[in-house]
Amino acid sequence: MKVLVLHGVNLNMFGKRPSGLYGNWTLKEIDEALRELGRELGVEVECFQSNSEAEIIGQIHRVHVEKSADGILINPGAWTHYSYALRDALEMLTIPVVEVHMSNIHAREPFRHVSVIAPVAKGQISGFGINSYLLGLRALVEEIRKTGS
Amino acid sequence: MKVLVLHGVNLNMFGKRPSGLYGNWTLKEIDEALRELGRELGVEVECFQSNSEAEIIGQIHRVHVEKSADGILINPGAWTHYSYALRDALEMLTIPVVEVHMSNIHAREPFRHVSVIAPVAKGQISGFGINSYLLGLRALVEEIRKTGS
Amino acid sequence: MKVLVLHGVNLNMFGKRPSGLYGNWTLKEIDEALRELGRELGVEVECFQSNSEAEIIGQIHRVHVEKSADGILINPGAWTHYSYALRDALEMLTIPVVEVHMSNIHAREPFRHVSVIAPVAKGQISGFGINSYLLGLRALVEEIRKTGS
Amino acid sequence: MKVLVLHGVNLNMFGKRPSGLYGNWTLKEIDEALRELGRELGVEVECFQSNSEAEIIGQIHRVHVEKSADGILINPGAWTHYSYALRDALEMLTIPVVEVHMSNIHAREPFRHVSVIAPVAKGQISGFGINSYLLGLRALVEEIRKTGS
Amino acid sequence: MKVLVLHGVNLNMFGKRPSGLYGNWTLKEIDEALRELGRELGVEVECFQSNSEAEIIGQIHRVHVEKSADGILINPGAWTHYSYALRDALEMLTIPVVEVHMSNIHAREPFRHVSVIAPVAKGQISGFGINSYLLGLRALVEEIRKTGS
Amino acid sequence: MKVLVLHGVNLNMFGKRPSGLYGNWTLKEIDEALRELGRELGVEVECFQSNSEAEIIGQIHRVHVEKSADGILINPGAWTHYSYALRDALEMLTIPVVEVHMSNIHAREPFRHVSVIAPVAKGQISGFGINSYLLGLRALVEEIRKTGS
Amino acid sequence: MKVLVLHGVNLNMFGKRPSGLYGNWTLKEIDEALRELGRELGVEVECFQSNSEAEIIGQIHRVHVEKSADGILINPGAWTHYSYALRDALEMLTIPVVEVHMSNIHAREPFRHVSVIAPVAKGQISGFGINSYLLGLRALVEEIRKTGS
Amino acid sequence: MKVLVLHGVNLNMFGKRPSGLYGNWTLKEIDEALRELGRELGVEVECFQSNSEAEIIGQIHRVHVEKSADGILINPGAWTHYSYALRDALEMLTIPVVEVHMSNIHAREPFRHVSVIAPVAKGQISGFGINSYLLGLRALVEEIRKTGS
Amino acid sequence: MKVLVLHGVNLNMFGKRPSGLYGNWTLKEIDEALRELGRELGVEVECFQSNSEAEIIGQIHRVHVEKSADGILINPGAWTHYSYALRDALEMLTIPVVEVHMSNIHAREPFRHVSVIAPVAKGQISGFGINSYLLGLRALVEEIRKTGS
Amino acid sequence: MKVLVLHGVNLNMFGKRPSGLYGNWTLKEIDEALRELGRELGVEVECFQSNSEAEIIGQIHRVHVEKSADGILINPGAWTHYSYALRDALEMLTIPVVEVHMSNIHAREPFRHVSVIAPVAKGQISGFGINSYLLGLRALVEEIRKTGS
Amino acid sequence: MKVLVLHGVNLNMFGKRPSGLYGNWTLKEIDEALRELGRELGVEVECFQSNSEAEIIGQIHRVHVEKSADGILINPGAWTHYSYALRDALEMLTIPVVEVHMSNIHAREPFRHVSVIAPVAKGQISGFGINSYLLGLRALVEEIRKTGS
Amino acid sequence: MKVLVLHGVNLNMFGKRPSGLYGNWTLKEIDEALRELGRELGVEVECFQSNSEAEIIGQIHRVHVEKSADGILINPGAWTHYSYALRDALEMLTIPVVEVHMSNIHAREPFRHVSVIAPVAKGQISGFGINSYLLGLRALVEEIRKTGS
Repeated sequence: MKVLVLHGVNLNMFGKRPSGLYGNWTLKEIDEALRELGRELGVEVECFQSNSEAEIIGQIHRVHVEKSADGILINPGAWTHYSYALRDALEMLTIPVVEVHMSNIHAREPFRHVSVIAPVAKGQISGFGINSYLLGLRALVEEIRKTGS
Repeated sequence: MKVLVLHGVNLNMFGKRPSGLYGNWTLKEIDEALRELGRELGVEVECFQSNSEAEIIGQIHRVHVEKSADGILINPGAWTHYSYALRDALEMLTIPVVEVHMSNIHAREPFRHVSVIAPVAKGQISGFGINSYLLGLRALVEEIRKTGS
Repeated sequence: MKVLVLHGVNLNMFGKRPSGLYGNWTLKEIDEALRELGRELGVEVECFQSNSEAEIIGQIHRVHVEKSADGILINPGAWTHYSYALRDALEMLTIPVVEVHMSNIHAREPFRHVSVIAPVAKGQISGFGINSYLLGLRALVEEIRKTGS
Repeated sequence: MKVLVLHGVNLNMFGKRPSGLYGNWTLKEIDEALRELGRELGVEVECFQSNSEAEIIGQIHRVHVEKSADGILINPGAWTHYSYALRDALEMLTIPVVEVHMSNIHAREPFRHVSVIAPVAKGQISGFGINSYLLGLRALVEEIRKTGS
Repeated sequence: MKVLVLHGVNLNMFGKRPSGLYGNWTLKEIDEALRELGRELGVEVECFQSNSEAEIIGQIHRVHVEKSADGILINPGAWTHYSYALRDALEMLTIPVVEVHMSNIHAREPFRHVSVIAPVAKGQISGFGINSYLLGLRALVEEIRKTGS
Repeated sequence: MKVLVLHGVNLNMFGKRPSGLYGNWTLKEIDEALRELGRELGVEVECFQSNSEAEIIGQIHRVHVEKSADGILINPGAWTHYSYALRDALEMLTIPVVEVHMSNIHAREPFRHVSVIAPVAKGQISGFGINSYLLGLRALVEEIRKTGS
Repeated sequence: MKVLVLHGVNLNMFGKRPSGLYGNWTLKEIDEALRELGRELGVEVECFQSNSEAEIIGQIHRVHVEKSADGILINPGAWTHYSYALRDALEMLTIPVVEVHMSNIHAREPFRHVSVIAPVAKGQISGFGINSYLLGLRALVEEIRKTGS
Repeated sequence: MKVLVLHGVNLNMFGKRPSGLYGNWTLKEIDEALRELGRELGVEVECFQSNSEAEIIGQIHRVHVEKSADGILINPGAWTHYSYALRDALEMLTIPVVEVHMSNIHAREPFRHVSVIAPVAKGQISGFGINSYLLGLRALVEEIRKTGS
Repeated sequence: MKVLVLHGVNLNMFGKRPSGLYGNWTLKEIDEALRELGRELGVEVECFQSNSEAEIIGQIHRVHVEKSADGILINPGAWTHYSYALRDALEMLTIPVVEVHMSNIHAREPFRHVSVIAPVAKGQISGFGINSYLLGLRALVEEIRKTGS
Repeated sequence: MKVLVLHGVNLNMFGKRPSGLYGNWTLKEIDEALRELGRELGVEVECFQSNSEAEIIGQIHRVHVEKSADGILINPGAWTHYSYALRDALEMLTIPVVEVHMSNIHAREPFRHVSVIAPVAKGQISGFGINSYLLGLRALVEEIRKTGS
Repeated sequence: MKVLVLHGVNLNMFGKRPSGLYGNWTLKEIDEALRELGRELGVEVECFQSNSEAEIIGQIHRVHVEKSADGILINPGAWTHYSYALRDALEMLTIPVVEVHMSNIHAREPFRHVSVIAPVAKGQISGFGINSYLLGLRALVEEIRKTGS
Repeated sequence: MKVLVLHGVNLNMFGKRPSGLYGNWTLKEIDEALRELGRELGVEVECFQSNSEAEIIGQIHRVHVEKSADGILINPGAWTHYSYALRDALEMLTIPVVEVHMSNIHAREPFRHVSVIAPVAKGQISGFGINSYLLGLRALVEEIRKTGS
């Protein structure tokens, strides 16, 4: 089983800005933690970050065409709130998608309460820092197993 | 460490209605699964369901006054979308609160996209069926440990 | 054939407040008129009123689990306009639900024009005083017969 | 006692389109059922359909000037949602008006949730197919008798 | 100089309904008063009423094609608030249009505060009963003279 | 009979700004035309302009206390759209108030479509340049005569 | 194969008003161009215009009952923006409907951006003058052939 | 003279949560202060708190039927913002109702700016901590005396 | 201790207009009642009314610069609903401000439900006629004493 | 004559996802069909797709600076609904732009009803699958010829 | 060259209230800094502050009639957000107007995000404390020179 | 001291499109003018333009990580109105950001009145053509000096 983790715009800066919202983890550490949990759960974890909407969408297309992953874990960053392009890319997939956010977007500015991605995802986890990612991976693996059986 | 699980209105009917949204688990089975995971994580799990807003709020008050739990895991059911009374009860707590939903509320009718509970919760998990509860318990235990250290 | 009539919040006060909107019928008289019409139509009528949302929901759950009624006639009172909890309870039923109002809610204050219950009911009757109940019972019995055949 | 039944725009097509919403009754059959129930209730029923707003309004004016009916039963069709002209015509009447809809308009598209006719009607019945008309006739006759006594 | 007066939907009923809003003038009396004022101002006044949007629009087209009037005085009745068809018909004219209302539409129900006709009229007069028509005729004659000079 | 004409904010500039909207009349010329029409109609016309809301309101209070006018003709200028203070002052009067505008406010920017003054005026005339004032004076005199009789 | 072309309200005036938006074509010329293209495409074209909503709806009903056309090409004129009656008439058809506009309605006043007809049409073409009709006919013929095969 | 004081949901927790908004008074102390002021004003004060909407409404019904109080002082807590049920219960009373809030609800989150209770109350006092209650009692006693005389 | 009472626009007319909303008190009588209660509470009361926003704001500035009062009691009249200028003036103060209204603004027209002043006031009292002022003075004195200690 | 066809985000996936909305054509086949129709119409067709907004905008800039095309046919994909950047790029062109969509965007989710591109395009065609492109090319060629003459 | 600087409501209090938003400059110091920069730029600077809308508007009228300034630099204070009267006064000018704000109004409360003045100004500068004024003067002088050349 | 100037999407086209809004300056000329003013102010100016959101965000990240600039001057172009991604990137900076626009965005189409960037900028300058940039540079240098001291 293989999972693609997609980190959206600005997320390469995790740990490089002082933040009560996100904790001090760097993206590299997050990816390592995900891969480690992946090994524990028996799943291969591939990670990718880009500030380019086109590159993220390219990854989703690649997965769709090459059938190179069994599920996608995505933190869309600020694109969450307006990128209908990203939504359309995810909508065409038949594998499960899980949406995660380190901060609780529903408790921040009003424009962050709406996710245009959510209607095409299996579920959403927000507010638990790096743990949002780890719980999201667990949820995704369960979903893959359920639909795969 | 002790955790209180609160199930809101109509949730006693889990498993008793045919549903693609929630799976076939009964509330009793969900509680057992939570207690089992609790044992694994070294945490005592107490479960409570009511269709009475007053009783759920009473439980929250009791926890606040007696300091009888270290965190709350809550699925508010339909109250999610309008019960400011429940929100006010949770807001006074100093222990962490985690909000869970079995279905992905952000992908259903528009009135379900807004949670009046979210701004007073640590985080929110929705869309993974019974797994929303289990992941929520994991998230809550982590939060208690983090703030407790 | 058996029908459950549910009267929501404040409706125990029918006839006890001076009102051009509702006429002078007491709840007891309404229930008697319904039972009488029930006898005429060959259907057993059980009536229940509560100011507690939890109790009304409990009745709906009971009907669902025990299959103890073939249809529900409900006047939700002020809950009509905000109780998504009541809506969720009714939504799980497979028997028909008919919503009635003594006053014409569509001709009163704007907040009364919206019914969150209507989308899960078979139909709605409003504006005819006690006759709203009687017409509602007729409509419900027809629906039960149609779906039962 | 005499009642005028007005069928609005497109309603001449009842029974001529396949529909889960309306059943298979033709307008002619509906009118016959109304006249039959009228005979039972001791009331003369006159029926009129038009796709022309001007003609329907003309009928209302005629009734008003000639005092040729004791009540109006109207299904305004799609005009329900925007014809303030129809509303103004009905508003000048002193005899009771009852509004009926075969489908439950409150459970369909949002634009159908608002009736600009409702504020000038005695009451509204929607969702019971041909039975909406029959219940509406009963309600109207009751209203005429009540105000006439 | 010649002026066409157009009375919209329901206005044939003036004087036939008891009304504090409109006074007791019949349409015939209004037309006579307009013709009399027309004679005083040296202008021929032609009057037309219809409950059919198509007929009123037909009159406007005729005036446009035959150049048979120098200005239009119109009381659109309830069409004021939604008939974009009437607006489009008036918009193509090069002669001045004056909009009148017997009641003060800006002081009545909110839906009457918006006129979709106003943006294509020279001006609007509302609130003065039959005098709204007479003042409107004066205004229209002034406009015709101004643009004609 | 005596009439008070109130010109609101910026209206002292009439004729001093190049304008297709208002024509080239100065305020002094408008006042003279009003007084001349007043003589013709047998009514004394007093005119007052101020850019100070307090002064305009003071005039209204004076009229109310001293009963020194039988009606008010007012062009509130930009205050039309937000001065609830002016509205409250006019609302206490028992003599008729007529609101006039030289331009057709319903055909300009959206913020000019709403008049907070209109609900407390007898009627409104807009769009006819200086003629709006003259027609307004005629309307006001009629209203005074009607209510005075 | 036979196609019915419906021209809505005011469209009989094409070419009779000076217009940068529509060009100088008359309705007669448009109909001839459509019939000519029809011959080229091997399809019979029948054209009908009315300012009466009832007559246009009557044509749609006739087509539905008599199965006298294989598709409808419609320019609803101003009805586009509010005639739910027209929408309901078109909705009952099983043959394809194509909506055309000579001007680009999405680039004009905001009220023209919304089409209540679009949700029941196969597609929409706007902005190309007479060419909108010709392209629309091509599109409609393709749709008929596709669904007919 | 007798006054019923109703404390709504969560208000049993006054003084038990750290709060700059409400001060450190417990509900018991508030009730004692009210009773003491009552003795000073010559009025008997009965106090009741519940987190159950049904129980609060039951108290209002009891007062209405038994005529057991001359006025009601109510702090509805979070129900202020959505409980139309509570509003309907209070609306049927003929004795005066005064609404109080310890914090200034008009200066907090937007959802707290709207009171669905206010339209059925005599007046509202908010922002003065325990003093809101004491001033409210004074206001209520005045109202009772005024309407009683 | 010294308190400044500010009466806003139109309030000089209290008692001079027939009103069920405000009672028959004149402003002079209100000021006397306030001064009398002031003497009882041991506080000097200075009163000021103006229809000029500039003058009211000037008073607030004077108090701020000269530290000539310990608190402000203000009834802003219609400015309540739109004068951000008044709000900004009050916002700069460090002494407490109490907002009062004789009528219950939350039960009147919708535009009166919003106070732009409330967010910069300590609290608000509305609906009790002259008593709103007297209760407001009591509240203000308490606040001054609390913050002064 | 030369035309540039721009395919926006995700459109490289045409034919690679199962879809009732778009048919089974691949982008390559669409481009070939366009080039073939181009040859028939005597126009050179250049096609370009990108998921990068910057690249699409770059193409538009190039056309503008190098005057390398006589018209643009664009399907903006999901950018239709939010990319003001794309709109600004197209707005600077003096050659005609035609907007096409394979599905009928006006009949899908509400967020797809608004095109921020439409106000800067000559016209819009939506709903006809690959035919939307072919009709769009015809429309564009006509526009180029009309403006070029 | 001569420039008029207008300071709106409450701005006489600059430096007299503790503020992180505005710095510690007094209005007198701001005026001196402007005059000094004026000398440097070769332009005469006249300054005027008032809390009276009428006085500010009077200054604008005077400039318009006497042609006594070549440009206006204005900080409207809170009037920015609602004074259509001020906007109308500025709109009639043919000399350039520059709008400045010391704080960044677009980053404060939502009601401050909208400027009703901006549509009639050349440009807007906000957020730089006293420097907003100095940059505004530079911008204004440039504009005068550009349009004057 | 070093400043980074960022030009957003489409701004490479300055001077290449005929525009009354922007003047005839090319981006190269703007950059030269900025660098020249920079030399005058003793600050090094680095300029960067891209139509790729990812590249602009990359520059911001680089500045943040490498601390390679003391302030950012940004004209986000059309991204101003929807790029929350750009906002998030700028929000993490601790150096000042100044937002500039050549046209007065507050006087153009409504969608341009809102800047999602403004809440994370120090201030905003709009409407002065190339001078917006030069004033912005002055403002930025002042801010850097102020916070640096």
